[in-house]
Amino acid sequence: MSRVPGATLVAACSPLSSELEWARDTLQVPHLYEDYTALLAHDGLDAVFLVTPTSLHPQQIIQALQAGKHVFCEKPLSLDLEDCRRVSAEAARHPQLQVMIGFVRRFDASYQDAYRKIQHGAIGSPFMVYSQTCDQYDPDGFFVKFAATSGGIFLDCSVHDIDLARWLLGNPQPVRVYASGTRAIHQDLAQFQDVDNGVAICEFENGKIATFYASRTMTHGHDTMTEITGTAGRLTVGSNPRKNRLEIADAHGVRNECVPSFFERFEDAFLTEVSAFVEAVRQRRKLELTLADATEATRIGIALRESLLSKQPVLL
Amino acid sequence: MSRVPGATLVAACSPLSSELEWARDTLQVPHLYEDYTALLAHDGLDAVFLVTPTSLHPQQIIQALQAGKHVFCEKPLSLDLEDCRRVSAEAARHPQLQVMIGFVRRFDASYQDAYRKIQHGAIGSPFMVYSQTCDQYDPDGFFVKFAATSGGIFLDCSVHDIDLARWLLGNPQPVRVYASGTRAIHQDLAQFQDVDNGVAICEFENGKIATFYASRTMTHGHDTMTEITGTAGRLTVGSNPRKNRLEIADAHGVRNECVPSFFERFEDAFLTEVSAFVEAVRQRRKLELTLADATEATRIGIALRESLLSKQPVLL
Amino acid sequence: MSRVPGATLVAACSPLSSELEWARDTLQVPHLYEDYTALLAHDGLDAVFLVTPTSLHPQQIIQALQAGKHVFCEKPLSLDLEDCRRVSAEAARHPQLQVMIGFVRRFDASYQDAYRKIQHGAIGSPFMVYSQTCDQYDPDGFFVKFAATSGGIFLDCSVHDIDLARWLLGNPQPVRVYASGTRAIHQDLAQFQDVDNGVAICEFENGKIATFYASRTMTHGHDTMTEITGTAGRLTVGSNPRKNRLEIADAHGVRNECVPSFFERFEDAFLTEVSAFVEAVRQRRKLELTLADATEATRIGIALRESLLSKQPVLL
Amino acid sequence: MSRVPGATLVAACSPLSSELEWARDTLQVPHLYEDYTALLAHDGLDAVFLVTPTSLHPQQIIQALQAGKHVFCEKPLSLDLEDCRRVSAEAARHPQLQVMIGFVRRFDASYQDAYRKIQHGAIGSPFMVYSQTCDQYDPDGFFVKFAATSGGIFLDCSVHDIDLARWLLGNPQPVRVYASGTRAIHQDLAQFQDVDNGVAICEFENGKIATFYASRTMTHGHDTMTEITGTAGRLTVGSNPRKNRLEIADAHGVRNECVPSFFERFEDAFLTEVSAFVEAVRQRRKLELTLADATEATRIGIALRESLLSKQPVLL
Repeated sequence: MSRVPGATLVAACSPLSSELEWARDTLQVPHLYEDYTALLAHDGLDAVFLVTPTSLHPQQIIQALQAGKHVFCEKPLSLDLEDCRRVSAEAARHPQLQVMIGFVRRFDASYQDAYRKIQHGAIGSPFMVYSQTCDQYDPDGFFVKFAATSGGIFLDCSVHDIDLARWLLGNPQPVRVYASGTRAIHQDLAQFQDVDNGVAICEFENGKIATFYASRTMTHGHDTMTEITGTAGRLTVGSNPRKNRLEIADAHGVRNECVPSFFERFEDAFLTEVSAFVEAVRQRRKLELTLADATEATRIGIALRESLLSKQPVLL
Repeated sequence: MSRVPGATLVAACSPLSSELEWARDTLQVPHLYEDYTALLAHDGLDAVFLVTPTSLHPQQIIQALQAGKHVFCEKPLSLDLEDCRRVSAEAARHPQLQVMIGFVRRFDASYQDAYRKIQHGAIGSPFMVYSQTCDQYDPDGFFVKFAATSGGIFLDCSVHDIDLARWLLGNPQPVRVYASGTRAIHQDLAQFQDVDNGVAICEFENGKIATFYASRTMTHGHDTMTEITGTAGRLTVGSNPRKNRLEIADAHGVRNECVPSFFERFEDAFLTEVSAFVEAVRQRRKLELTLADATEATRIGIALRESLLSKQPVLL
Repeated sequence: MSRVPGATLVAACSPLSSELEWARDTLQVPHLYEDYTALLAHDGLDAVFLVTPTSLHPQQIIQALQAGKHVFCEKPLSLDLEDCRRVSAEAARHPQLQVMIGFVRRFDASYQDAYRKIQHGAIGSPFMVYSQTCDQYDPDGFFVKFAATSGGIFLDCSVHDIDLARWLLGNPQPVRVYASGTRAIHQDLAQFQDVDNGVAICEFENGKIATFYASRTMTHGHDTMTEITGTAGRLTVGSNPRKNRLEIADAHGVRNECVPSFFERFEDAFLTEVSAFVEAVRQRRKLELTLADATEATRIGIALRESLLSKQPVLL
Repeated sequence: MSRVPGATLVAACSPLSSELEWARDTLQVPHLYEDYTALLAHDGLDAVFLVTPTSLHPQQIIQALQAGKHVFCEKPLSLDLEDCRRVSAEAARHPQLQVMIGFVRRFDASYQDAYRKIQHGAIGSPFMVYSQTCDQYDPDGFFVKFAATSGGIFLDCSVHDIDLARWLLGNPQPVRVYASGTRAIHQDLAQFQDVDNGVAICEFENGKIATFYASRTMTHGHDTMTEITGTAGRLTVGSNPRKNRLEIADAHGVRNECVPSFFERFEDAFLTEVSAFVEAVRQRRKLELTLADATEATRIGIALRESLLSKQPVLL
C-alpha cells in the first residue's frame, strides 16, 4: 500500500494471529482485528481489500457495502452464480460505492496496450481469442490440496482468460461452451473431478469465438498468453514468458529463462490495479471493470466445468 | 523431379493441353498423355504422382495399383471414408507397391526434429497438441471458388494438423471431436456451409487432446504452427512464420516479414517428401506414413465438419 | 522518493523558481532552497541527490561531503579527470559517508541477472564485451544544443557502456583505446567536434576487449544492448528493445514496438538504484559501485574522445 | 552439381587418389585427372571450380583463363595483394570469361533480401555495418593446424564481413583500419601471431564505418550476423543463428538450438551461388561480384592483420 498514491493502510483483519503479527511487523499496520465486523467499524476506514477464501467473498462484500465501504476483492467473485447476483444486487443499492474484482491482467501494461490498439482499430474487427493460463509444475502439488475449493481448473485459472476474451472482444454474449481436459501428471485430482490440463471453446454471439487452455504442468515456468485475431491483424500478449531482457547463448542453444509464477509476471499489474481502484474511489469515477463482468466470468467458468463433466456442449 | 535423386520424369498426363504444353516446354517431359489409362501403360513407368482434384484420387490410385505402379498422391486421400477404405483394400492386395499421401509437413526439417526429440524423450510423455493452419487473406478469394469441392476448412486445412497431432502423440485412437467456426470476412462461404475461421478440440484415448485452428484470413502471412506439450516440456514448430533471417528495425518497431503461403514455408519439405517416396520405392522400404494414416485424417476431418454443422460433439 | 523505502524527501534546491514550484506542488516537498549552501545546512538532512549540470558535480559533491552529507550524483562524475580525483580525495577523508554516481544500468534487473550468472561461472571466463547506447532520433535535436557541455558522444553515452564493460569483465585495467565516428544526420555537431554515431575498441589487460557503439540516430527507439562473451557462453542484455510483451502481426509482418527512451527502459532500475543507495546509507554498507569506478569511466571516455579527434590509439 | 540447372560435372582433378575415388564413386564423375593441366585440356570443359589451397588460387585461375575456361574459385582469392592484381590483369585480357570468387554470403536469401531493401531505400542512407563471423568452438582445434596458411582470423573469417560491408554500404573506398584481438582459449595460436577472437574498425570515405568481430570460440554454434544501420532504419541478418523453426520450452527456459557450422547456415546459399555463376556463364551476363571486390577484401584483410600486429591504425 505504501506504493499506492492516495492510499493509507490503516487496519488489517485476520482470524490467524500469525497473519496479524506479520501485518504488524512487516507492514507496520497500526490497527489489527480478528473480527471482520470490528474491522468494518474502524473509524476512518474508506475501503476494504479482501484476500480471503473465495467462499467468503460474497458475504464479506455485502457486509462491507452495508457498512458503507468500497470493496476490492480478489477474483473470482464467487463460484456460485446466485451469490454473484446477490452481490450485484447489493452493490446496486450503493451506487456511490466502488466494488472491484481483481482481474489483474486487465491492468498489465501489455494487455492495456493491446486493448487500446484494438480500440483504435489496429486489427480491424476482433473475432477470435486464444488465451492460456499455464502454471509451472509444482512438485509439492499445493494446488491439489486447494482443488476441493478452487472450483476446478476453469474457475480457478481460465476465469482470467474468460474475462480477457470478453473484454478484448467487446463484451459479446456467450452462447455455447465445450470443454475437455486430462490428468497428465496429477492423478489425485480425480477425487475432485478436476484435471491438470484443460481446453475449451467458448462461442459468443455474432460469430466471435474464444479458445482457452489452462495447465498446472508446465516445465519452463508460468506461461500466460493471449492472442486476439481481427480482420486486419493479430495481437499476442506474452508469446514468450521471458523472465527479463537477458538472453543466454550456451550449450543449450540461445535461450531465455521464464517467469516462475503469476506473481513475477503481474507484479506491476497488481500495483496498477490497486492504484486504479484507489483513484476511482477518490475521483468517484466509474470503473470499467464491473461486477457484471465478474459475474459473467463465473457464469462461463461454471459452464466450462459442466461441459468437462458432461462431455456435452453447455448452452448459455 | 530434376532435384530428386534416383527419379526421372518420363511422362506427364493431363486433359488440358495448356498443362501438357507447360510440361513439355518448362519441364522438358518427353512423353505426354491426355488419357490416364494411356499414361499407366507407358513403358518403363515405375510410379505416378497424382496432383489431381481430390474427387479423382481414389479411382486413380486404384487404377495405378492395378497397373502395378507405385503412387504418390496429394492430400487428402479422399473426402469420403468409404473411398479411403476401398483404396486401402486395393493397396493391401499389392503389398509390393508403395502408396503415399502427401502430408508434406511431416517432412519439414523442424517437424522432423520435433518428432525425433519426442522419440528421445525430450518432453517426457506428450499429451497435448495445439496445431494451426492459417492462410494469408486472399482478396481474390480463390479458395471460395474451391470451397464447393474442398470439403470445408477442416478437411482442406486442418487435415494437416490432424495428421501431425496423431503422429506426434503416437497415433492414439480418437474418441470425440467438437468444432466451431465463423465467417469473419468471407460471408459467401455460407452457401457451402463453410467458415473462414474454425477451431476444434479432438479428444483421443488415454487423455490425449489436440486443439486445431484453421483460418483463411491472416493479414501477416501464412502461419502454420504446432505446439506439442509433454509432461517434461513443450516443443513449438513455427512460433513466428518468419520469411527468412532478416530483421527490420524501423518506424514500425522491430519486425520480420512472413512467408506468404505454404509453398514458401514448405518448399524444402516437398523435396524431402518426394525424395523419401522415391527412396522407399527404390529400397523397397516400408513408409512410416501409411494409407491408414491418411484414412484416419479424413475420418477425423469429416467428424469435425459434422460437429461444426450439428453444434454437437461427434463420437468416433 | 515516496517509492523508496526508508527515505523521506525533506527539502529541494534550485536556482529556478519554476523548479521549486514544481517540487512544492507536485512532490509536496516541505522545504525549498534557492541556495545550495542553505540546503546543506537544513536540519535533519542526511543525504543529497544531485541532478545538476555535470560541470557542477565535483564542487557540489565536495561541499556536501564537507557538510557531512551522503551524496547521490547523476553520471558522469565529471568530464575532467583532475576533478574526479579531487572528489575521490575528499571522499577518502569522509569514510563514513557514501558517494554514489548514478550508473543506473548496473541496477537493471537484467544486468543484475547477467552479473550474477557471470559470478556463478555461467559463461566461463568473460573476455569480450560489445555494448551499445543508441538513442532514438530526435528531430528537435535537443542533444545538439547540449553537445557543447556533454563532453561528446562517448562521455555522454558510452560512459555507461564503459562502466558496464569494466564491471562485467571484473574491473580489468584499460590499456589502449581507438575510436571513430561519423555525422550521419546531425551535421551541426561539427562545430563541437562531436559525432552522432561513434564506435570504439577498448583493450584491457590480460586480453580482455570491449567494443562500444553509441548513436543518436536510431529510428526504432532507444536501443541499449550489451553482450558479454566468455569461454563457455555468451550473455546478451537487450537484444530487442521491446516496449512490453505485446507482439503485433499485421501487414508489416510480426513485430514489437520499442522503448522510446532510456527512461522507459530503465524506470525500474532508477528506483532500484536509489533504494540501494538509501539502503547502503542506512545499513552503513559499502557500495560496490565506487568513485574509483566513476573516475575510471571518465578516464576511458576522455581517451575515446581524444582518439576520435587524433585518429590514433590512445594509451592509458 | 546435379542440383544446378544447366551444369554437368564432366571431370574432376586432384593429386590425391582418395579424392578421385570419392569423386568417381560418390559423384559418379566420368573423367578423373591427377594433373590440373590435363584437366584443362579436357574436351568440352567450359568452366572449372577450384576448391584448392588458397596459395594455389592465383596460378590456377590464371592457367584456367589462359586455357579459355570460366572459373569459380573459393574465397579468398589470395592472401597476397600482388597475386590478386596478377589475376585481375589476366582476367582483363579475357573479357569473355567469367571469374567468380565464392563470397557465398552474398547469395544467402536473407542477405539478398537485405541488399534489395537497401537498394529500395528501406533504411535511408546506410552508413554503419556491424558484421561478425563466429565459429563454434572446436575441441579438436582443426583450424589451429590450418592457421599457418589461413592468413589469420581476419583474412580467413572477417574477409566475408569485409565483402558484405563493402557491398551493403555501396562499395565505398576504405580509408583506415584498426584491429585488436585476444587468445581466449587457443594459446597455441601465439606461434602464428594469430588470435581466436578479433575485433576491428574499418573507416571508409564519406563517414561510413564497419565494425567486425570474428571468433573461433563460440559455445552455442556458428553465429554469423550482420547489422546495417541507415539514416531511416536498421537491418539485421542472423540475430539468432537458429537451427530451424523448432523452439523448446523446458527446464532450461525457452530456447532454440543453433546451426553448428557455416555449412548448415549457408547450404542453400552455396547452391544459389553456383547457380548464379552457371547462369552468368550461359547467359554471358556480367557478374555483380567481381575480382575487384575479391581484391579489395584481401587488401582490407591484410591491413587488419597488420594493425593487429602493429597495434596502430593502418591507412589504405
